[in-house]
Amino acid sequence: MTRPLSVGLAGLGTVGAGVLALLRQNAQVVAARAGRPIAVTAVAARDRARDRGIALAGLRWFDDAAALAADPAVDVVVEVIGGADGIARATVEAAIAAGKPVVTANKALLAVHGAELAAAAERAGVPLAFEAAVAGGIPVIKALREGLAGNRISRVAGILNGTCNYILTVMRERGREFAEVLAEAQKLGYAESDPSFDVDGIDAAHKLAILAALAFGRPVAFAAVHVEGIRHVSALDIAFAGELGYRIKLLGIARQHAAGIEARVHPCMVAHTSPLARVDGVFNAVVAEGDFAGRIMLEGRGAGAGPTASAVVADLVDLARGRLTPVWGAQSGMLSDAPSLPMSAHAGCYYLRLMVVDRPGVIADVTAVLRDAGISLESMLQRGRSPGEAVPVVLVTHETREDAMQAALARIGALDAVLEPPAVIRIEPA
Amino acid sequence: MTRPLSVGLAGLGTVGAGVLALLRQNAQVVAARAGRPIAVTAVAARDRARDRGIALAGLRWFDDAAALAADPAVDVVVEVIGGADGIARATVEAAIAAGKPVVTANKALLAVHGAELAAAAERAGVPLAFEAAVAGGIPVIKALREGLAGNRISRVAGILNGTCNYILTVMRERGREFAEVLAEAQKLGYAESDPSFDVDGIDAAHKLAILAALAFGRPVAFAAVHVEGIRHVSALDIAFAGELGYRIKLLGIARQHAAGIEARVHPCMVAHTSPLARVDGVFNAVVAEGDFAGRIMLEGRGAGAGPTASAVVADLVDLARGRLTPVWGAQSGMLSDAPSLPMSAHAGCYYLRLMVVDRPGVIADVTAVLRDAGISLESMLQRGRSPGEAVPVVLVTHETREDAMQAALARIGALDAVLEPPAVIRIEPA
Repeated sequence: MTRPLSVGLAGLGTVGAGVLALLRQNAQVVAARAGRPIAVTAVAARDRARDRGIALAGLRWFDDAAALAADPAVDVVVEVIGGADGIARATVEAAIAAGKPVVTANKALLAVHGAELAAAAERAGVPLAFEAAVAGGIPVIKALREGLAGNRISRVAGILNGTCNYILTVMRERGREFAEVLAEAQKLGYAESDPSFDVDGIDAAHKLAILAALAFGRPVAFAAVHVEGIRHVSALDIAFAGELGYRIKLLGIARQHAAGIEARVHPCMVAHTSPLARVDGVFNAVVAEGDFAGRIMLEGRGAGAGPTASAVVADLVDLARGRLTPVWGAQSGMLSDAPSLPMSAHAGCYYLRLMVVDRPGVIADVTAVLRDAGISLESMLQRGRSPGEAVPVVLVTHETREDAMQAALARIGALDAVLEPPAVIRIEPA
Repeated sequence: MTRPLSVGLAGLGTVGAGVLALLRQNAQVVAARAGRPIAVTAVAARDRARDRGIALAGLRWFDDAAALAADPAVDVVVEVIGGADGIARATVEAAIAAGKPVVTANKALLAVHGAELAAAAERAGVPLAFEAAVAGGIPVIKALREGLAGNRISRVAGILNGTCNYILTVMRERGREFAEVLAEAQKLGYAESDPSFDVDGIDAAHKLAILAALAFGRPVAFAAVHVEGIRHVSALDIAFAGELGYRIKLLGIARQHAAGIEARVHPCMVAHTSPLARVDGVFNAVVAEGDFAGRIMLEGRGAGAGPTASAVVADLVDLARGRLTPVWGAQSGMLSDAPSLPMSAHAGCYYLRLMVVDRPGVIADVTAVLRDAGISLESMLQRGRSPGEAVPVVLVTHETREDAMQAALARIGALDAVLEPPAVIRIEPA
């Protein structure tokens, strides 16, 4: 057994404390699997006085994480500070500049600056590992980049944000509205006090951008991801989804088309029998489709101190064993230059729910707009009658293009008898 | 880019042909991910004349796979012959002796001789990779051994045999008996003409032995796996399972207890809401529970040319990249020496179904036997009455030990009013 791998831990929040706890509690198991002990020897955080419920005695303390990253006694830098810029980015850049391997759990950093960071790491010959950036304890980075290495992957899709999945699950189970369930989730600690990163889909989009880069072997392209969150999902639409045999999930979906790569995060209707439909609560799941492996699905806890620490340590064990993989699965010269496709080119089926005045001719007006846009209907549903009042009308279309649908929606929304902006949820094949 | 990795392919059945096809069809993707081209340059099979639907021109032909394994122009040997002994074993031993890395899809070989082969490979400093040996295209070896490397794994369980899962699924969906569905599966090519390896649980036990070794970091111990197949599962018990909220699945389950390791393959009742209950048809799934990652589940196609080739090539890419892992996850000196526990020490709940004469006092006799054995009942179910005739009675117990249950079953089976040997299916917590 060689000398311990000396880890400098930048960030001592929930995840940092989890990494410390894991490396202590499972030191023997980790040493056996890594072929040498792995130990945190230095930590960096802002507030030295704060009680984190974990002993820090014997660890060298740095107020400045970038200084820790450059310290000669540190073999590997673990960055669990978070955030696309600021000290997290400076720390990772300092580590790469110092020629030190980096393990990070930072999806925002990778999604936004991953292309440059990967290029810098490659130039410096420094490994940059990030299993913990997507889907917590589920080894999905490893599965895509190594486990499916023999496959052309045509599609990767997943439930990538536990907060949204929890909220949508509770909305469905209890028939309640978004705002109410969000407030409760905040009280329970399942949602942040500023929830917008989660509920507006940004966190899921960060993760999807990373998965798409790995699946299709190209540099990460966060700006090309179409992002919608779950604020506009209503209890009414969840109930109609159930009636139609669907569940509403916030999915991240990336597909390889002949013309390029489509990547989008938005609420989807998925058949209630599909594997992703059954993943409820705070769980995450990722489905990948390979031309030889077929469809595989991985499911588990996508967040929290334990799962995230598990992923960080898996990366540390890989480093200790010398198991290296280029950041996006292949050296920069071998990456795909497939273009990103705009959302307007997306094709799929759509669920529309309109609030209309219940009077003769309204449905005819709406369906005329759809006909004029070349959109054909699969089904129409109007439950209940209350002449002269507002009633919901549900329409499900056959496959059509996003741009045609958006044009039709503008015209439908402008009809006199249509009382609210139409609710639109895309239907995703299982 | 360095020179191609030269693969010697021992075995040209379905899987061998799949590997050839993949390495040709996805040559570019594989080269990018491996950092160098990977190409089959030599093949070994018995019958040179047989049409395998794939071009063999340009490949060096060996009638003797062991000679191929020793050939100096071969960098890596892929063994896809199958079988625990004979030519498959000789080929792998020859490759290790010649200092060549081995990739094998052979679960029987690994389960039965894996401890010696791993020791030989370690002595020779030769990698021995076997992602394809368990669960086909699902990267479960990698997930357990690398992805969860930071965890103490307490339990690994899975649906490991697609043939059995297909048969049980069709029995449930159509209310049909085992023998009928087996015959049909044989016609459709989902079951072998000699189905015993599959339906008697041996194939699943081979795979479970491998998973248990990886999960708990110890040499493989196939002989210690308790094995029962699905021949005795009846349509009647499947129907009762449904009524009680369960599904019947053939599971392989390994658990780490304080006293040692329990490993068993047998039909189980699992709650219909549990993730494994929903994995139907030919699909495989593996659940692993880590102390930090929590429960993760991986699901996909567990057999067939494409998925198995995908796993073989993932191992080849790892070799090409120099990503190495000790066979059982740690060097031999670091492996656990936890003992295997006998099935008699298993503790769990049981489903019993008796065919009894419908007359007063029978249930009292049966429950008296259970009481005397210290077994308490959770529920009892007797549907229908036909005085003096045979009727089924279903009993579900609270947790008890296997040895107590077996002793009670012997006494129950000997009662006059009990007309057939009791049907027993263990209940597995979700």
